[in-house]
Amino acid sequence: MNTYFTPGPTQRFPTIPQHLKNAVDEEIISIAHRGKGFQVLFEKATNGLRKLMNIPANYHIFFVSSATEAMERIIQGTVEKNSIHFTTGVFSERMYDFARDLKKNARQVKAKDGETFTHKELIIPKTVELACFTHNETSTGVMMNLTDIYNVKKSNPNILLSLDIVSSAPYVNVDFRYIDCAFISVQKGFGLPAGLGIVIVSPQAIMKAHALQKKDINIGANFHNLVGMLYQSQTHEMIETPNILALYLLGNVLEDMLTIGIETIRKQTNQKAKLIWDFFENNMSKYSLFVKNQDIRSPTVTVVEVKGGSMSLIEKLKSKSFIVGFGVRPEYKEKHIRITNFPAHTLEDVKKLLSFF
Amino acid sequence: MNTYFTPGPTQRFPTIPQHLKNAVDEEIISIAHRGKGFQVLFEKATNGLRKLMNIPANYHIFFVSSATEAMERIIQGTVEKNSIHFTTGVFSERMYDFARDLKKNARQVKAKDGETFTHKELIIPKTVELACFTHNETSTGVMMNLTDIYNVKKSNPNILLSLDIVSSAPYVNVDFRYIDCAFISVQKGFGLPAGLGIVIVSPQAIMKAHALQKKDINIGANFHNLVGMLYQSQTHEMIETPNILALYLLGNVLEDMLTIGIETIRKQTNQKAKLIWDFFENNMSKYSLFVKNQDIRSPTVTVVEVKGGSMSLIEKLKSKSFIVGFGVRPEYKEKHIRITNFPAHTLEDVKKLLSFF
Repeated sequence: MNTYFTPGPTQRFPTIPQHLKNAVDEEIISIAHRGKGFQVLFEKATNGLRKLMNIPANYHIFFVSSATEAMERIIQGTVEKNSIHFTTGVFSERMYDFARDLKKNARQVKAKDGETFTHKELIIPKTVELACFTHNETSTGVMMNLTDIYNVKKSNPNILLSLDIVSSAPYVNVDFRYIDCAFISVQKGFGLPAGLGIVIVSPQAIMKAHALQKKDINIGANFHNLVGMLYQSQTHEMIETPNILALYLLGNVLEDMLTIGIETIRKQTNQKAKLIWDFFENNMSKYSLFVKNQDIRSPTVTVVEVKGGSMSLIEKLKSKSFIVGFGVRPEYKEKHIRITNFPAHTLEDVKKLLSFF
Repeated sequence: MNTYFTPGPTQRFPTIPQHLKNAVDEEIISIAHRGKGFQVLFEKATNGLRKLMNIPANYHIFFVSSATEAMERIIQGTVEKNSIHFTTGVFSERMYDFARDLKKNARQVKAKDGETFTHKELIIPKTVELACFTHNETSTGVMMNLTDIYNVKKSNPNILLSLDIVSSAPYVNVDFRYIDCAFISVQKGFGLPAGLGIVIVSPQAIMKAHALQKKDINIGANFHNLVGMLYQSQTHEMIETPNILALYLLGNVLEDMLTIGIETIRKQTNQKAKLIWDFFENNMSKYSLFVKNQDIRSPTVTVVEVKGGSMSLIEKLKSKSFIVGFGVRPEYKEKHIRITNFPAHTLEDVKKLLSFF
């Protein structure tokens, strides 16, 4: 059996095999998406997420097929004309590209790979409707300062703020009062099979979607747009058949995580991150941490430059049954490795992984 | 254990529990969506579908999150301005509604519930780019004549034709030469968990998507639009993480179905349909088949009007562990039942179900 330190799909949360078995026994594959049984599991997933991540009661939780779809739906639902994208790598650039695909007037502010922005660089032009930030850039392991992002909202209360927490949830502690749209994919920090994205949406973002719809702007087809997703989540009745099995698994893994406790998860994540960073900082002749500044280094995704190339190391680790990620951009593919640090990874796993370097 | 004759989600294909167990053992939850392991299972799914449903080699097979998403992506990718929708019930109306949501000039030609169109009614105005047909309308159990649909394409080779085969696949034998976009959801005839839709696309439809993109028309965000899906399927490299577990299950269920053989599946479906129809035709004091004309009655979804109301019957069947579907439109909800007849349903299941009426 391999242990996966890849950035997602990744090591499954340890209870997944048992939950899958239970799903078969409880006939989760066959139950209707409009019945009582579905409502119960839907509420378990949304209530669990609300509790674990401290999501305000007036914020909405919607499900899509991936974080990538979440990017598209957020832009469609909240931007008539102008968006701004503070990009720190491949995944934040994806949302910028999507805004252009959707024929919005999108502006990009680009950080160097491995770096982020000073708070003085976070300037929002007057016409901007949506400002997009990536908390944790999965391609580079850079992490933005949340207080700086909150300050953007405080100074610009009328614009909407989108936050990519794809690879930092559930570890990240977001103050949702300053965020209008946040999104997650479950195959990273939650250790679930891929195929489900989560969007957390503020009342202000919903108002914008309603306003755009009223102006006859294309916000996407019903059920997939923010207005249609709101209708479905409020009635707890899905018009479109969702990934019921994934929602069942999510609700149960959230229950497991609530039993462990989010503070414990955060503490363990920090412990494991320290172990990983210390190791590479003590082996600087062979490795260097790609994000030099520890204040902006993600505890959940560490990117390491391997002197002399990463490919043979990746192969060696694989031969020991440890799978790590490649670099993302073509120029990093054979130079970087990416190591994730999610709740499914134990301290023992991390120690064992590092012993093979 | 219940037996589900609902229209989807429905009775799981019998091998699903074993395939799920194997998925855990084979670490399908953790494997990368850009690696060799994924490519193998992706090809198994697409090759299996191509073989089972006789899809031409030059047609493309794309995966989305649901048939509902398929409707949206087909409209986005193939219509600049004008579509026409021949609607026979709630699900064909959904695609018409989506075209309007997406700000297309959509025209509806509506059949009475339980009825369909004469070939003379299938007239396509000159400006139409996409004509949408529903082979099997899951809400009413009405089935359109495929030859009539093919003739539309023969007479109008320049327009694109979309065919909803959501609840008739894999039973339906489509001659894809006359169809540009067909779509399926796996939680019906394939007996899989919900969360995956399939789109089968002709080269002509792809050309249209390219042309629209070149004209700077919004065809949806990359990876989700027909052009982006083509790129991903041709490189066998998913940019966006797909529902890998569902693709694994699909490939394996397709293999099982190929072992049974499509002709056997069709023969068995016809046998079971005859049993169901004969039963209700022999009990006309209590029931009537909603689709009177057998030529347009779907073998895979039978809708029955229950004289005196359907609710107590549905409850009674449930107490015997047989689950059937409600009517879809509000006015049918308490009058109709819907019984599906998919490969997962055995002749014995059908006999037992009917014995409880």
